[in-house]
Amino acid sequence: MPVIEIKLWEGRTRAQKAAMAKRITEAVVEEGKTEAEHVHIIFSDHDRSNWAIAGDLQDHH
Amino acid sequence: MPVIEIKLWEGRTRAQKAAMAKRITEAVVEEGKTEAEHVHIIFSDHDRSNWAIAGDLQDHH
Amino acid sequence: MPVIEIKLWEGRTRAQKAAMAKRITEAVVEEGKTEAEHVHIIFSDHDRSNWAIAGDLQDHH
Amino acid sequence: MPVIEIKLWEGRTRAQKAAMAKRITEAVVEEGKTEAEHVHIIFSDHDRSNWAIAGDLQDHH
Amino acid sequence: MPVIEIKLWEGRTRAQKAAMAKRITEAVVEEGKTEAEHVHIIFSDHDRSNWAIAGDLQDHH
Amino acid sequence: MPVIEIKLWEGRTRAQKAAMAKRITEAVVEEGKTEAEHVHIIFSDHDRSNWAIAGDLQDHH
Repeated sequence: MPVIEIKLWEGRTRAQKAAMAKRITEAVVEEGKTEAEHVHIIFSDHDRSNWAIAGDLQDHH
Repeated sequence: MPVIEIKLWEGRTRAQKAAMAKRITEAVVEEGKTEAEHVHIIFSDHDRSNWAIAGDLQDHH
Repeated sequence: MPVIEIKLWEGRTRAQKAAMAKRITEAVVEEGKTEAEHVHIIFSDHDRSNWAIAGDLQDHH
Repeated sequence: MPVIEIKLWEGRTRAQKAAMAKRITEAVVEEGKTEAEHVHIIFSDHDRSNWAIAGDLQDHH
Repeated sequence: MPVIEIKLWEGRTRAQKAAMAKRITEAVVEEGKTEAEHVHIIFSDHDRSNWAIAGDLQDHH
Repeated sequence: MPVIEIKLWEGRTRAQKAAMAKRITEAVVEEGKTEAEHVHIIFSDHDRSNWAIAGDLQDHH
Protein backbone atom coordinates (compact mmCIF):
# COMPACT_ATOMS: atom_id res chain seq x y z
CA MET A 1 0.00 0.00 0.00
CA PRO A 2 2.68 2.60 0.51
CA VAL A 3 3.29 4.64 -2.63
CA ILE A 4 6.64 6.39 -2.61
CA GLU A 5 7.58 9.02 -5.18
CA ILE A 6 11.18 10.12 -5.42
CA LYS A 7 12.04 13.22 -7.44
CA LEU A 8 15.73 13.41 -8.31
CA TRP A 9 17.99 15.48 -10.50
CA GLU A 10 19.00 13.69 -13.66
CA GLY A 11 22.14 11.64 -13.56
CA ARG A 12 21.47 8.70 -11.24
CA THR A 13 22.10 5.37 -12.92
CA ARG A 14 19.81 2.39 -12.98
CA ALA A 15 22.17 0.68 -10.52
CA GLN A 16 21.91 3.56 -8.06
CA LYS A 17 18.11 3.51 -8.27
CA ALA A 18 18.04 -0.27 -7.85
CA ALA A 19 20.14 0.01 -4.70
CA MET A 20 17.97 2.81 -3.31
CA ALA A 21 14.76 0.91 -4.09
CA LYS A 22 16.00 -2.19 -2.31
CA ARG A 23 17.06 -0.39 0.87
CA ILE A 24 14.03 1.91 0.99
CA THR A 25 11.68 -1.04 0.61
CA GLU A 26 13.46 -2.90 3.42
CA ALA A 27 13.16 0.15 5.67
CA VAL A 28 9.45 0.56 4.97
CA VAL A 29 8.72 -3.14 5.45
CA GLU A 30 10.71 -3.48 8.68
CA GLU A 31 9.79 -0.19 10.33
CA GLY A 32 6.32 0.30 8.86
CA LYS A 33 5.07 -3.26 9.18
CA THR A 34 3.90 -3.76 5.66
CA GLU A 35 4.66 -6.37 3.01
CA ALA A 36 7.28 -5.85 0.35
CA GLU A 37 4.98 -6.59 -2.56
CA HIS A 38 2.76 -3.68 -1.53
CA VAL A 39 5.58 -1.13 -1.69
CA HIS A 40 5.62 0.86 -4.91
CA ILE A 41 8.46 3.28 -5.59
CA ILE A 42 8.30 5.67 -8.54
CA PHE A 43 11.46 7.56 -9.45
CA SER A 44 11.38 10.60 -11.68
CA ASP A 45 14.41 12.38 -13.10
CA HIS A 46 14.24 16.14 -13.34
CA ASP A 47 16.42 18.40 -15.40
CA ARG A 48 18.08 21.09 -13.32
CA SER A 49 16.62 23.67 -15.69
CA ASN A 50 13.22 22.68 -14.27
CA TRP A 51 14.18 22.95 -10.60
CA ALA A 52 14.59 26.26 -8.79
CA ILE A 53 16.00 26.84 -5.32
CA ALA A 54 15.83 30.34 -3.86
CA GLY A 55 14.25 31.49 -7.10
CA ASP A 56 17.14 30.28 -9.28
CA LEU A 57 16.94 27.51 -11.83
CA GLN A 58 19.76 25.15 -10.90
CA ASP A 59 21.30 24.42 -14.31
CA HIS A 60 24.01 27.05 -14.02
CA HIS A 61 25.40 25.65 -10.77
CA MET B 1 -12.30 21.25 -9.98
CA PRO B 2 -11.22 17.65 -9.71
CA VAL B 3 -7.60 17.16 -10.72
CA ILE B 4 -6.81 13.56 -11.58
CA GLU B 5 -3.27 12.32 -12.12
CA ILE B 6 -2.75 8.91 -13.66
CA LYS B 7 0.70 7.34 -13.55
CA LEU B 8 1.08 4.50 -16.05
CA TRP B 9 3.82 2.33 -17.41
CA GLU B 10 4.90 3.35 -20.89
CA GLY B 11 3.14 1.76 -23.78
CA ARG B 12 -0.44 2.99 -23.71
CA THR B 13 -1.44 4.61 -26.98
CA ARG B 14 -3.14 7.96 -27.45
CA ALA B 15 -6.34 6.08 -28.31
CA GLN B 16 -6.24 4.14 -25.06
CA LYS B 17 -5.72 7.33 -23.06
CA ALA B 18 -8.51 9.09 -24.95
CA ALA B 19 -10.90 6.25 -24.11
CA MET B 20 -9.85 6.24 -20.45
CA ALA B 21 -10.18 10.03 -20.20
CA LYS B 22 -13.68 9.95 -21.64
CA ARG B 23 -14.99 7.25 -19.31
CA ILE B 24 -13.24 8.56 -16.21
CA THR B 25 -14.65 12.03 -16.81
CA GLU B 26 -18.14 10.60 -17.23
CA ALA B 27 -17.77 8.67 -13.98
CA VAL B 28 -16.60 11.72 -12.05
CA VAL B 29 -19.32 13.95 -13.50
CA GLU B 30 -22.16 11.48 -12.93
CA GLU B 31 -21.12 10.13 -9.53
CA GLY B 32 -19.34 13.19 -8.15
CA LYS B 33 -21.80 15.85 -9.32
CA THR B 34 -19.37 18.15 -11.01
CA GLU B 35 -19.20 19.61 -14.51
CA ALA B 36 -17.14 18.02 -17.24
CA GLU B 37 -15.21 21.18 -18.10
CA HIS B 38 -13.84 21.26 -14.56
CA VAL B 39 -12.34 17.77 -14.77
CA HIS B 40 -8.63 17.79 -15.55
CA ILE B 41 -6.83 14.50 -16.15
CA ILE B 42 -3.05 14.40 -16.44
CA PHE B 43 -1.47 11.17 -17.66
CA SER B 44 2.20 10.46 -17.19
CA ASP B 45 4.12 7.58 -18.71
CA HIS B 46 6.79 5.97 -16.57
CA ASP B 47 9.58 3.74 -17.73
CA ARG B 48 9.62 0.43 -15.88
CA SER B 49 13.25 1.10 -14.96
CA ASN B 50 11.89 3.94 -12.80
CA TRP B 51 9.23 1.89 -11.03
CA ALA B 52 10.01 -0.62 -8.27
CA ILE B 53 7.67 -3.14 -6.67
CA ALA B 54 8.88 -5.15 -3.70
CA GLY B 55 12.23 -3.39 -4.05
CA ASP B 56 12.77 -4.49 -7.66
CA LEU B 57 12.87 -2.20 -10.66
CA GLN B 58 10.31 -3.65 -13.06
CA ASP B 59 12.22 -3.50 -16.35
CA HIS B 60 13.44 -7.06 -16.21
CA HIS B 61 9.94 -8.56 -15.87
CA MET C 1 0.49 -0.67 -11.71
CA PRO C 2 -1.52 2.45 -12.44
CA VAL C 3 -1.57 4.86 -9.54
CA ILE C 4 -4.42 7.35 -9.76
CA GLU C 5 -4.68 10.37 -7.49
CA ILE C 6 -7.93 12.30 -7.39
CA LYS C 7 -8.01 15.69 -5.72
CA LEU C 8 -11.55 16.82 -4.91
CA TRP C 9 -13.23 19.57 -3.00
CA GLU C 10 -14.59 18.40 0.33
CA GLY C 11 -18.12 17.12 0.39
CA ARG C 12 -18.18 13.90 -1.60
CA THR C 13 -19.55 11.01 0.41
CA ARG C 14 -18.03 7.57 0.79
CA ALA C 15 -20.74 6.23 -1.51
CA GLN C 16 -19.85 8.70 -4.24
CA LYS C 17 -16.18 7.80 -3.99
CA ALA C 18 -16.99 4.09 -4.02
CA ALA C 19 -19.00 4.52 -7.21
CA MET C 20 -16.26 6.59 -8.84
CA ALA C 21 -13.58 4.07 -7.83
CA LYS C 22 -15.54 1.19 -9.32
CA ARG C 23 -16.17 2.85 -12.67
CA ILE C 24 -12.69 4.36 -13.00
CA THR C 25 -11.09 1.00 -12.29
CA GLU C 26 -13.29 -0.65 -14.92
CA ALA C 27 -12.31 2.00 -17.45
CA VAL C 28 -8.60 1.60 -16.76
CA VAL C 29 -8.76 -2.20 -16.86
CA GLU C 30 -10.82 -2.38 -20.05
CA GLU C 31 -9.18 0.42 -22.02
CA GLY C 32 -5.68 0.24 -20.57
CA LYS C 33 -5.30 -3.54 -20.52
CA THR C 34 -4.22 -3.94 -16.95
CA GLU C 35 -5.54 -6.04 -14.08
CA ALA C 36 -7.92 -4.64 -11.51
CA GLU C 37 -5.83 -5.62 -8.50
CA HIS C 38 -3.00 -3.40 -9.80
CA VAL C 39 -5.15 -0.28 -9.92
CA HIS C 40 -4.69 1.98 -6.91
CA ILE C 41 -6.87 5.06 -6.51
CA ILE C 42 -6.12 7.63 -3.82
CA PHE C 43 -8.75 10.29 -3.14
CA SER C 44 -7.94 13.43 -1.23
CA ASP C 45 -10.44 16.00 -0.02
CA HIS C 46 -9.40 19.63 -0.18
CA ASP C 47 -10.96 22.51 1.62
CA ARG C 48 -11.99 25.31 -0.72
CA SER C 49 -9.94 27.70 1.39
CA ASN C 50 -6.88 25.80 0.13
CA TRP C 51 -7.79 25.91 -3.57
CA ALA C 52 -7.43 29.03 -5.71
CA ILE C 53 -8.71 29.59 -9.23
CA ALA C 54 -7.74 32.78 -11.04
CA GLY C 55 -5.88 33.84 -7.91
CA ASP C 56 -8.94 33.55 -5.68
CA LEU C 57 -9.39 31.11 -2.84
CA GLN C 58 -12.69 29.38 -3.57
CA ASP C 59 -14.31 29.38 -0.12
CA HIS C 60 -16.36 32.51 -0.72
CA HIS C 61 -18.07 31.17 -3.83
CA MET D 1 10.43 24.16 3.35
CA PRO D 2 7.76 24.94 0.81
CA VAL D 3 7.82 22.54 -2.10
CA ILE D 4 6.02 23.91 -5.14
CA GLU D 5 5.22 21.76 -8.17
CA ILE D 6 4.07 23.46 -11.33
CA LYS D 7 2.58 21.37 -14.12
CA LEU D 8 2.53 23.20 -17.45
CA TRP D 9 1.83 22.43 -21.06
CA GLU D 10 4.97 22.11 -23.11
CA GLY D 11 6.29 25.24 -24.76
CA ARG D 12 7.42 27.55 -21.98
CA THR D 13 11.05 28.60 -22.41
CA ARG D 14 13.76 28.51 -19.81
CA ALA D 15 13.52 32.32 -19.60
CA GLN D 16 9.80 32.16 -18.83
CA LYS D 17 10.35 29.58 -16.12
CA ALA D 18 13.22 31.59 -14.64
CA ALA D 19 10.99 34.66 -14.44
CA MET D 20 8.14 32.68 -12.88
CA ALA D 21 10.48 31.03 -10.35
CA LYS D 22 11.89 34.39 -9.27
CA ARG D 23 8.50 36.04 -8.74
CA ILE D 24 6.86 33.01 -7.12
CA THR D 25 9.74 32.68 -4.68
CA GLU D 26 9.49 36.37 -3.79
CA ALA D 27 5.75 36.00 -3.19
CA VAL D 28 6.20 32.96 -0.95
CA VAL D 29 9.03 34.55 1.03
CA GLU D 30 7.28 37.89 1.54
CA GLU D 31 3.74 36.63 2.19
CA GLY D 32 4.54 33.27 3.75
CA LYS D 33 7.40 34.39 5.99
CA THR D 34 9.94 31.79 4.95
CA GLU D 35 13.50 32.05 3.63
CA ALA D 36 14.27 31.96 -0.07
CA GLU D 37 16.78 29.12 0.18
CA HIS D 38 14.05 26.84 1.53
CA VAL D 39 11.76 27.38 -1.45
CA HIS D 40 11.96 24.57 -4.01
CA ILE D 41 10.05 24.88 -7.28
CA ILE D 42 9.78 21.91 -9.64
CA PHE D 43 8.41 22.57 -13.12
CA SER D 44 7.20 19.75 -15.33
CA ASP D 45 6.23 20.05 -18.97
CA HIS D 46 3.30 17.99 -20.14
CA ASP D 47 2.39 17.14 -23.68
CA ARG D 48 -1.18 18.13 -24.53
CA SER D 49 -1.80 14.55 -25.64
CA ASN D 50 -1.41 13.61 -21.97
CA TRP D 51 -3.79 16.24 -20.60
CA ALA D 52 -7.58 15.95 -20.85
CA ILE D 53 -10.18 18.59 -20.05
CA ALA D 54 -13.85 17.64 -20.13
CA GLY D 55 -12.79 14.16 -21.22
CA ASP D 56 -10.87 15.39 -24.28
CA LEU D 57 -7.14 15.12 -24.79
CA GLN D 58 -6.03 18.65 -25.61
CA ASP D 59 -3.68 18.04 -28.53
CA HIS D 60 -6.26 18.74 -31.20
CA HIS D 61 -7.12 22.22 -29.92
CA MET E 1 -4.06 24.84 -17.53
CA PRO E 2 -1.24 25.21 -15.05
CA VAL E 3 -1.81 23.18 -11.91
CA ILE E 4 0.30 24.39 -9.00
CA GLU E 5 0.62 22.43 -5.76
CA ILE E 6 2.16 24.13 -2.77
CA LYS E 7 3.16 22.04 0.23
CA LEU E 8 3.67 24.13 3.36
CA TRP E 9 4.22 23.58 7.03
CA GLU E 10 1.11 24.23 9.08
CA GLY E 11 0.60 27.72 10.37
CA ARG E 12 -0.01 29.94 7.36
CA THR E 13 -3.27 31.84 7.64
CA ARG E 14 -5.96 32.13 5.03
CA ALA E 15 -4.84 35.73 4.44
CA GLN E 16 -1.27 34.64 3.74
CA LYS E 17 -2.45 31.99 1.30
CA ALA E 18 -4.78 34.47 -0.41
CA ALA E 19 -1.89 36.90 -0.90
CA MET E 20 0.39 34.14 -2.21
CA ALA E 21 -2.30 32.85 -4.58
CA LYS E 22 -2.89 36.32 -6.01
CA ARG E 23 0.78 37.07 -6.68
CA ILE E 24 1.65 33.58 -7.96
CA THR E 25 -1.27 33.69 -10.38
CA GLU E 26 -0.17 37.11 -11.65
CA ALA E 27 3.38 35.81 -12.16
CA VAL E 28 2.20 32.76 -14.08
CA VAL E 29 -0.20 34.75 -16.24
CA GLU E 30 2.28 37.52 -17.08
CA GLU E 31 5.40 35.42 -17.55
CA GLY E 32 3.84 32.19 -18.78
CA LYS E 33 1.28 33.71 -21.13
CA THR E 34 -1.77 31.92 -19.86
CA GLU E 35 -5.16 33.13 -18.63
CA ALA E 36 -5.89 33.59 -14.97
CA GLU E 37 -9.00 31.41 -14.94
CA HIS E 38 -6.89 28.44 -16.03
CA VAL E 39 -4.51 28.72 -13.09
CA HIS E 40 -5.32 26.31 -10.27
CA ILE E 41 -3.37 26.49 -7.03
CA ILE E 42 -3.76 23.79 -4.38
CA PHE E 43 -2.25 24.45 -0.97
CA SER E 44 -1.69 21.68 1.53
CA ASP E 45 -0.64 22.10 5.14
CA HIS E 46 1.76 19.53 6.55
CA ASP E 47 2.46 18.87 10.16
CA ARG E 48 6.17 19.08 10.95
CA SER E 49 5.95 15.59 12.42
CA ASN E 50 5.31 14.39 8.86
CA TRP E 51 8.25 16.23 7.27
CA ALA E 52 11.85 15.09 7.60
CA ILE E 53 14.98 16.96 6.57
CA ALA E 54 18.33 15.19 6.79
CA GLY E 55 16.51 12.18 8.21
CA ASP E 56 14.97 14.12 11.09
CA LEU E 57 11.28 14.80 11.59
CA GLN E 58 11.05 18.57 12.03
CA ASP E 59 8.65 18.82 14.98
CA HIS E 60 11.36 19.19 17.59
CA HIS E 61 13.00 22.21 15.94
CA MET F 1 17.54 18.01 -3.69
CA PRO F 2 15.65 14.77 -3.61
CA VAL F 3 12.05 15.24 -2.61
CA ILE F 4 10.44 12.03 -1.39
CA GLU F 5 6.70 11.71 -0.80
CA ILE F 6 5.42 8.71 1.09
CA LYS F 7 1.71 7.97 1.09
CA LEU F 8 0.70 5.57 3.85
CA TRP F 9 -2.46 4.26 5.39
CA GLU F 10 -3.23 5.84 8.71
CA GLY F 11 -1.85 4.17 11.78
CA ARG F 12 1.92 4.53 11.65
CA THR F 13 3.31 6.20 14.75
CA ARG F 14 5.73 9.06 14.91
CA ALA F 15 8.42 6.60 16.00
CA GLN F 16 7.85 4.42 12.95
CA LYS F 17 8.06 7.41 10.64
CA ALA F 18 11.20 8.65 12.38
CA ALA F 19 12.86 5.27 11.86
CA MET F 20 11.80 5.13 8.22
CA ALA F 21 13.00 8.69 7.58
CA LYS F 22 16.40 7.95 9.06
CA ARG F 23 17.01 4.79 7.04
CA ILE F 24 15.58 6.15 3.80
CA THR F 25 17.76 9.25 4.06
CA GLU F 26 20.84 7.08 4.66
CA ALA F 27 20.00 4.98 1.61
CA VAL F 28 19.54 8.01 -0.62
CA VAL F 29 22.73 9.68 0.62
CA GLU F 30 24.89 6.57 0.32
CA GLU F 31 23.53 5.16 -2.93
CA GLY F 32 22.50 8.40 -4.63
CA LYS F 33 25.51 10.51 -3.70
CA THR F 34 23.71 13.47 -2.27
CA GLU F 35 23.95 15.27 1.07
CA ALA F 36 21.60 14.50 3.91
CA GLU F 37 20.47 18.09 4.43
CA HIS F 38 19.10 18.14 0.88
CA VAL F 39 16.85 15.14 1.42
CA HIS F 40 13.24 16.10 2.15
CA ILE F 41 10.73 13.40 3.07
CA ILE F 42 7.03 14.21 3.29
CA PHE F 43 4.75 11.59 4.82
CA SER F 44 1.02 11.70 4.37
CA ASP F 45 -1.52 9.52 6.15
CA HIS F 46 -4.50 8.37 4.16
CA ASP F 47 -7.71 6.99 5.49
CA ARG F 48 -8.57 3.60 4.00
CA SER F 49 -11.93 5.01 2.97
CA ASN F 50 -9.98 7.22 0.55
CA TRP F 51 -7.90 4.43 -0.98
CA ALA F 52 -9.27 1.91 -3.49
CA ILE F 53 -7.61 -1.23 -4.78
CA ALA F 54 -9.29 -3.18 -7.57
CA GLY F 55 -12.11 -0.67 -7.44
CA ASP F 56 -12.84 -1.25 -3.75
CA LEU F 57 -12.39 1.27 -0.98
CA GLN F 58 -10.21 -0.47 1.58
CA ASP F 59 -11.99 0.46 4.82
CA HIS F 60 -13.99 -2.74 5.04
CA HIS F 61 -10.93 -5.01 4.91
